[in-house]
Amino acid sequence: MWRGGAMARLVVAARAFSASASAGAGGVAMVQGASRGIGLEFVRQLLRRSDQGRVVATCRAPAAAAELHKLREEHAPGRLTVLPLDVTDEATIEAAAASIAETHGSLDLLINSTGILSIPNVIQPETTLGKVQKPSLLLAYEVNAVGPILVIKVKFTGSLLFLFPVVLVGGHSETGRGFSLVANMSARVSSIGDNGLGGWHSYRASKTALNQLTKTVSVELGRKDNIACILLHPGTVDTDLSRPFQRNVPKDKLFTREFSVQKLLSIIDNVKKSDNGKFFAWDGQEIPW
Amino acid sequence: MWRGGAMARLVVAARAFSASASAGAGGVAMVQGASRGIGLEFVRQLLRRSDQGRVVATCRAPAAAAELHKLREEHAPGRLTVLPLDVTDEATIEAAAASIAETHGSLDLLINSTGILSIPNVIQPETTLGKVQKPSLLLAYEVNAVGPILVIKVKFTGSLLFLFPVVLVGGHSETGRGFSLVANMSARVSSIGDNGLGGWHSYRASKTALNQLTKTVSVELGRKDNIACILLHPGTVDTDLSRPFQRNVPKDKLFTREFSVQKLLSIIDNVKKSDNGKFFAWDGQEIPW
Repeated sequence: MWRGGAMARLVVAARAFSASASAGAGGVAMVQGASRGIGLEFVRQLLRRSDQGRVVATCRAPAAAAELHKLREEHAPGRLTVLPLDVTDEATIEAAAASIAETHGSLDLLINSTGILSIPNVIQPETTLGKVQKPSLLLAYEVNAVGPILVIKVKFTGSLLFLFPVVLVGGHSETGRGFSLVANMSARVSSIGDNGLGGWHSYRASKTALNQLTKTVSVELGRKDNIACILLHPGTVDTDLSRPFQRNVPKDKLFTREFSVQKLLSIIDNVKKSDNGKFFAWDGQEIPW
Repeated sequence: MWRGGAMARLVVAARAFSASASAGAGGVAMVQGASRGIGLEFVRQLLRRSDQGRVVATCRAPAAAAELHKLREEHAPGRLTVLPLDVTDEATIEAAAASIAETHGSLDLLINSTGILSIPNVIQPETTLGKVQKPSLLLAYEVNAVGPILVIKVKFTGSLLFLFPVVLVGGHSETGRGFSLVANMSARVSSIGDNGLGGWHSYRASKTALNQLTKTVSVELGRKDNIACILLHPGTVDTDLSRPFQRNVPKDKLFTREFSVQKLLSIIDNVKKSDNGKFFAWDGQEIPW
């Protein structure tokens, strides 16, 4: 739905054919984990791409998400909705889904952008097996692997149309996208084949499990529901998540959020149904498992 | 230590050079998750291979492990030790390690053989995302991925010599094995690249995470400690674990425990240090991540 070049034509087509009120022109995207970092930048760029597309931004504490509220005020009413969602609390996932179903009907794009790497006194990337702690392993798994999958699972809950593909009259054929898309944010360190350095046990294992879960889900949703699922590696991006670990990153390898998200949206725009279940880096290269 | 052909020579060499009492001739192997299935068969075959090698078998409830007690009575005193160990309870891991350090000094081989796939009313392999439950995802992760890693981690705890390689005089050079070995039981369904069917979300993701954790640990232990870590796929073996799912397995693809463990021990015997971090099927073929 977000293909830049075709957007003007899409908007025209959607208006001309009077697409259903629940779907709306420009599509509906949800960014889960949107209060900062890459998630926030996704919201910013998605809103900027057309004057029609609607975005649902979720985060744990909307009241404290000043940047999201600023974005909401900068755009036309209804274009940005901010909802509470904590991936470790299924009730909040279901409440967000119910709200989305009521307001928007369904989604064309879901970006799962939450991720936990380090929190002082709670979890730290491990430099040696000797520092690996069971609570860290379990917390990283719950947030980074289980969380995004439970968000996708809401599709199956009750009578919600959540994630069921919107068939905009003329819309999908205009954009060339005949399916809905789930993009889960992974990271290159999740690649087992690429793991030559070791360390970061909790984070690595959780993101590797996310890769497997996304692949597993992609088999089912690709077959039954006309939904494709992909995994994305954003590069090393200048965010709160990476800040404590930027020291050894060469300057030209540390991306701005603007650059990384621009690249990732270009991948999202150009995804084909046959890309279902694949893992792409910011530059479009596939990453080995 | 368990290379079949060289075992007689090893025993002779070890006797001749009067290996230390703590190391003993024939080496010390630990099988974690040994009360039934593949783990029990490992214990049986390891004991049968020489009249010297010692085996430590661990399971959650030794009192109920009748097969292990039978094996202990069938062999010379001291050849088989049965200890309680529950991978979800770190205190039991530490107690087992302390006992092993006191009795045997260290290990030459550690086989992590526990695995959870289905328990009535607790966990079931999921046929669809709609059946995925958070408690199942977390339990499978705790047992299948976190558990084996915490067992290996004991190496770093306190002053235990656990897993520090035994250098039998003449021993390792006789067998060609100059390092200790950790073999973690994985499964082909953990392969992301090989996942064309979907389903089994909790089990798949947990074993995929085990693959990543084992690879991560292998980088560190291979470099610092002269320990190699490998992953093994036993095939579909006629055990309690696979019984509910054997219906669709062709007869010639359903292995006996005897056959599978024979094949896996042959891989263990022939592992080279350069195999550190690899994932082997029962037939010696490497499995893609």
